[in-house]
Amino acid sequence: MASTTFKGYASTDPQKWSDFTVIEYPSKHWEETDIEIQISHCGVCGSDVHKLSGWGGFEPPLVVGHEIVGKAIRVGSEVKGVKVGDRVGVGAQIASCYNCKLCKSDNENYCHKMIDTYGDKHPDGMRTMGGYSTGIIANEQFVFPIPEGVTSADACSMLCGGLTVFSPLLRNGAGPGKKVGVIGIGGLGHYAVLFAKALGAEVYAFSHSHSKEADCKKMGADHYVLTEPGFHEQLQGELDIIISTRDAAHGFPMQEFLSTLVVHGKFICVGLPDDPFPAFTGFSFLNNGCFFGGSHIGSKKECLEMLDIAAKKGVKPWIEVMPMKDCKKAVEGVKNGKPRYRYVLTQDLL
Amino acid sequence: MASTTFKGYASTDPQKWSDFTVIEYPSKHWEETDIEIQISHCGVCGSDVHKLSGWGGFEPPLVVGHEIVGKAIRVGSEVKGVKVGDRVGVGAQIASCYNCKLCKSDNENYCHKMIDTYGDKHPDGMRTMGGYSTGIIANEQFVFPIPEGVTSADACSMLCGGLTVFSPLLRNGAGPGKKVGVIGIGGLGHYAVLFAKALGAEVYAFSHSHSKEADCKKMGADHYVLTEPGFHEQLQGELDIIISTRDAAHGFPMQEFLSTLVVHGKFICVGLPDDPFPAFTGFSFLNNGCFFGGSHIGSKKECLEMLDIAAKKGVKPWIEVMPMKDCKKAVEGVKNGKPRYRYVLTQDLL
Repeated sequence: MASTTFKGYASTDPQKWSDFTVIEYPSKHWEETDIEIQISHCGVCGSDVHKLSGWGGFEPPLVVGHEIVGKAIRVGSEVKGVKVGDRVGVGAQIASCYNCKLCKSDNENYCHKMIDTYGDKHPDGMRTMGGYSTGIIANEQFVFPIPEGVTSADACSMLCGGLTVFSPLLRNGAGPGKKVGVIGIGGLGHYAVLFAKALGAEVYAFSHSHSKEADCKKMGADHYVLTEPGFHEQLQGELDIIISTRDAAHGFPMQEFLSTLVVHGKFICVGLPDDPFPAFTGFSFLNNGCFFGGSHIGSKKECLEMLDIAAKKGVKPWIEVMPMKDCKKAVEGVKNGKPRYRYVLTQDLL
Repeated sequence: MASTTFKGYASTDPQKWSDFTVIEYPSKHWEETDIEIQISHCGVCGSDVHKLSGWGGFEPPLVVGHEIVGKAIRVGSEVKGVKVGDRVGVGAQIASCYNCKLCKSDNENYCHKMIDTYGDKHPDGMRTMGGYSTGIIANEQFVFPIPEGVTSADACSMLCGGLTVFSPLLRNGAGPGKKVGVIGIGGLGHYAVLFAKALGAEVYAFSHSHSKEADCKKMGADHYVLTEPGFHEQLQGELDIIISTRDAAHGFPMQEFLSTLVVHGKFICVGLPDDPFPAFTGFSFLNNGCFFGGSHIGSKKECLEMLDIAAKKGVKPWIEVMPMKDCKKAVEGVKNGKPRYRYVLTQDLL
């Protein structure tokens, strides 16, 4: 079937990564398992900035944005559970193989044939383009109905930023009686505090300055720990899980953080710094048999659970809303760590 | 109470690390929770060699050896379950605090006040000395009864080498339906193959040459994989657990190995190379959300379970036995990767 034309804010020159030009571009070809979404909101993710300004370049023109909410305006005949007019969203993954053991076990976010929402290619050869745009077409598997209790502005950044921390929290048992550390209080980190609290855990927010202390307390963090020399000494063997959202690896007090974990505790890195972490030795993990690892967004099942918890517990992200034409200001703000704590763009091309 | 005098083969000069001299030295002071062991066998562990020749030096004279089996010849009045004449053993840990939450939850091997069997200090100030010697005194918590079905020569190297791989195998679910990779087929690696099989897992032995293929098959490995370029391509997402016993980190194909893990699979490093591993980035763990970590020997509970399984399933380590006076030959052999697969020293000072 034919593709559709969308209009979006594209970065057209890697040398001027934050300059956007409105372009028209073709969607993927329509299939009857697809949903077409008219985009009303798109969050601005740190990945958008990394993709445009780091991580080894991109092929212009590129429309980024993978925290997408809007209205279903076309629904394929084979789609179940979504009808025209429903509020729905799309996160950082736009497709998978749908058939492997990972796809069939709620691990489609680790499918070896996963396709990114932008900067990647659909199986039909069309480039994937993101949500700083008028619309997107996605397979129903990667379209998430938004519950009534969550506004579109609040929902959109949950679909990548929220899910990226919610999935490892859930999979590693964050809940009552567990202590969760959160490193880096930015977009992801603020979600980690909010969702760890919503799941019932005791939360330790780590930061290098007092600047976010009041905010963290308002978000519900039980403890605010300044990462000064010796910060770890009072926390030896205390934390069950650490979620690190820090965006820079240089100078990271890794060994100190690992020492705060319980036996076999997990340090999960969801930030994706451009630089490598300090190298480990065999001794790094000897004191408590802890683990270092990563996590990649989350599954649809987890996304729906997250949205349900957000609706039921009234999880409200801290967002700043601006029109989509301000995307240059937004990505530059993210680059400079300005948002408190997440930017959301609203549609202005329709 | 008074201390006792033992006789042992000591390394007396860090510049001549493999030269041993027979010395007499005092034991820790006797307590009524202690057991005195007349040593009949002591395994030669890679740690003995690292301690003497790497890892930052040692204070001479030092008697190494922490794979100790012998006969209980004195038993404190407060000891339960061991009587004079019993065959018992001691591994790499000689004491802990006995009171913390780790000691009380079968994690005494991670107690923050753990004391190494040699090269450390007892709370009474006496130096800890190992098993290339006539005897040792240890708290009952760190004395393991050896079951009838396991010979002393077979048992001794299980108490560190065996337990070091058995504990992470057990704690990470090695068993029927699970696939376990073993990297580095030396002393620890051969135990990892033997115990992973005894636990019912499917075993993949990884090696850089064919030299150990026949041995691995005899040990029960289901697959032998040469780590040639591209070795990982047929194994993407297949292994539940990897136990790495490799003693050198340089040139390690880490990313290739990580790619062979299932989603959230675990890479557990029990080898302790002197050099650091290649540095990770945030992307290293993204494809499958896997974990990298370590493990430190094992608990007494696990040790007894291991010995029980060894007795019931007839797990036979591959050992070469020699008199204790050949300890120079033994540690130099270990340094050069010669044993097939573990050296055991027998008493010759009594």
